[in-house]
Amino acid sequence: MKSKRLYPKVFLIGYWFLFLTAFIFSQPARVPEVISPEVNKDNTVIFRFYAPTANEVKLDAQFLKSPVLMEKNTDGVFSVKVGPVSPDMYPYCFKVDGINVADPKNTAIFPNEGFQYSLVEITGDKPLVHTIKDVPHGTVSYHYYNNPELGIRPVVIYTPPGYEKNVNKDYPVLYLLHGTTDVEETWTKVGRANIILDNLINEGKAEPMIIVMPYGRGYPVISKSSGSLRNWDNLQVFKKDFFNYLMPFVEGNYRVKKDNNSRAIAGFSGGGGTSLYLGLNNPDYFRWVIGFAPGMKTDEFDRNNEVVFNNPEQANKNLKLFWMGVGKDDFVYTILKDYYKILDEKNIKYESFLSDGGHTWMNCKLFLSTVAQKLFK
Amino acid sequence: MKSKRLYPKVFLIGYWFLFLTAFIFSQPARVPEVISPEVNKDNTVIFRFYAPTANEVKLDAQFLKSPVLMEKNTDGVFSVKVGPVSPDMYPYCFKVDGINVADPKNTAIFPNEGFQYSLVEITGDKPLVHTIKDVPHGTVSYHYYNNPELGIRPVVIYTPPGYEKNVNKDYPVLYLLHGTTDVEETWTKVGRANIILDNLINEGKAEPMIIVMPYGRGYPVISKSSGSLRNWDNLQVFKKDFFNYLMPFVEGNYRVKKDNNSRAIAGFSGGGGTSLYLGLNNPDYFRWVIGFAPGMKTDEFDRNNEVVFNNPEQANKNLKLFWMGVGKDDFVYTILKDYYKILDEKNIKYESFLSDGGHTWMNCKLFLSTVAQKLFK
Repeated sequence: MKSKRLYPKVFLIGYWFLFLTAFIFSQPARVPEVISPEVNKDNTVIFRFYAPTANEVKLDAQFLKSPVLMEKNTDGVFSVKVGPVSPDMYPYCFKVDGINVADPKNTAIFPNEGFQYSLVEITGDKPLVHTIKDVPHGTVSYHYYNNPELGIRPVVIYTPPGYEKNVNKDYPVLYLLHGTTDVEETWTKVGRANIILDNLINEGKAEPMIIVMPYGRGYPVISKSSGSLRNWDNLQVFKKDFFNYLMPFVEGNYRVKKDNNSRAIAGFSGGGGTSLYLGLNNPDYFRWVIGFAPGMKTDEFDRNNEVVFNNPEQANKNLKLFWMGVGKDDFVYTILKDYYKILDEKNIKYESFLSDGGHTWMNCKLFLSTVAQKLFK
Repeated sequence: MKSKRLYPKVFLIGYWFLFLTAFIFSQPARVPEVISPEVNKDNTVIFRFYAPTANEVKLDAQFLKSPVLMEKNTDGVFSVKVGPVSPDMYPYCFKVDGINVADPKNTAIFPNEGFQYSLVEITGDKPLVHTIKDVPHGTVSYHYYNNPELGIRPVVIYTPPGYEKNVNKDYPVLYLLHGTTDVEETWTKVGRANIILDNLINEGKAEPMIIVMPYGRGYPVISKSSGSLRNWDNLQVFKKDFFNYLMPFVEGNYRVKKDNNSRAIAGFSGGGGTSLYLGLNNPDYFRWVIGFAPGMKTDEFDRNNEVVFNNPEQANKNLKLFWMGVGKDDFVYTILKDYYKILDEKNIKYESFLSDGGHTWMNCKLFLSTVAQKLFK
């Protein structure tokens, strides 16, 4: 009797097993819910990436010294917890079996022609100068202007809080150039230029100003013909675009003051080299010239400083601010020291600012928030 | 003698070989120049992706029926030539050993919370309705407004050409909602809403209007608590945000007409469900209600149409346009046919528009350019 009852039971269990197996395999592969990045209150951050077919995923982030391995769970989700991380906003990506991939669960993307990074923001206990707060916000506007030789070009323009309503007020203007493979959106999306100004203006630390962020080159750097951002031909094409088409567009459509006392130019990296070249050589246009870790080769010193070297005394009189910032670990610091030495020898006045860190957008935010408090005062 | 001379020669060659090998290996790995996508005049497109460590890369694009294999060259660059492709702007990505990756050489990114696609534009011989042309361009502005319950929220606002200068003119306003995992930038960057309006206004085919593109949900869809875009709780949070904070922000900062005759609401997919829910149930606010492949479940018909079903005659009088568009191959078409049937039975007037294709942003551009010519006339 016992064995008789046992047999059908086992049989039934076998059926159930078959049924369950068939059921499980007939389901579409379950894609697990992935949240990334998850910033914790203690400033640690968990990064997650769903990649069931990948063998190895590493996190590469600008707060890390080197990429760290992520661990794969049975759902195919790689994850790693890092930190605590010093509050700031950092670029990062996943290295998926050696290929750099932005975080598909994060809409904060680093706009760039050469790579794809995501951005993670660790705010910490108290808001930073680039933290989005409940203060009056300016407007970031996307425009097109036509350059008959180059075609239709994009430009992003920041107007300070109150611009739309103070219809009789004219504003000073800062032209702000991006780095080598960046684009016209990089200064707002990675550099938070608009938020920095919103916060400084709200605290009475910066003059309300308009910021013009163009696509800062003649041709894309990645195209064969163009070379680097400071390639002579590309720079000449951009210079023509800047003075003949961009500035007239801005001055025709915005209430900007049109004297050199109310016009500044700044730029990061390759764009810093451009800002010195355009700014220092055009004293009728600019009395405020700024380089954020400006990219320069030694043989570019002369071309960037033609007017200044010609008549240092006149340059000192004209320039209300000639400011350069760089990080101690930045690869451009060495050449910048050579440049400072030449400026010292020629008695050309400038302000230099030395920060920690390297050639990063964390430093860009620091440089802009520092220099914005000096402009147009 | 011969052998005596030969030996040193071989020896020397050996040294050279060693030297050359050491030299080659001491160089950093050469990263080849990669241009992608390259759109040719015959509407074929070459896609390229540098991935020396990858085994298999496929191109997945919305003009393809299924992903196509890319071929790897000795430099580690995968490439494929496809087409000719029917002129339009399409999302695409690379499937790198099974992982979806956006094109790192392309700054045209599809803003989305759930995935990362790039965008490729094939213009063809003559400009399309969404082609950026040398016509007067409106302004796309990025703003923040404060919702004390949800925090600071982003909104993108289009103003038509001339808005800044015609300071005494008020404009009608279209509230335009994105799809389920999209964000406030998706309608301009993928849907080209601004460019479509620039072109139609220039040709006299559309009334100059303001377009408001908010972050169209209470909470991110990817977060655990929120469920889908049309999840009841999420929808209620968004509804409150819409009427209590977004609309007052728009009406306080822009010269918009404030009557229901000058206010339209439209949305795509999940946002289309939202636009019907908000639009049809609030006749005091909207006389123009539009769904682009609107996402609805059968049990949402009643909630979306409470006011309309209650008094169809009154609804017909109120609605100046009740318009829905969908693609023949769209998965929402089946349920939309059920919805049309109910509307017919109840004698509720609407316009339906049937296009080719599926649940895509190519169709969104077509729907918007069609309906924009009917609005506020």
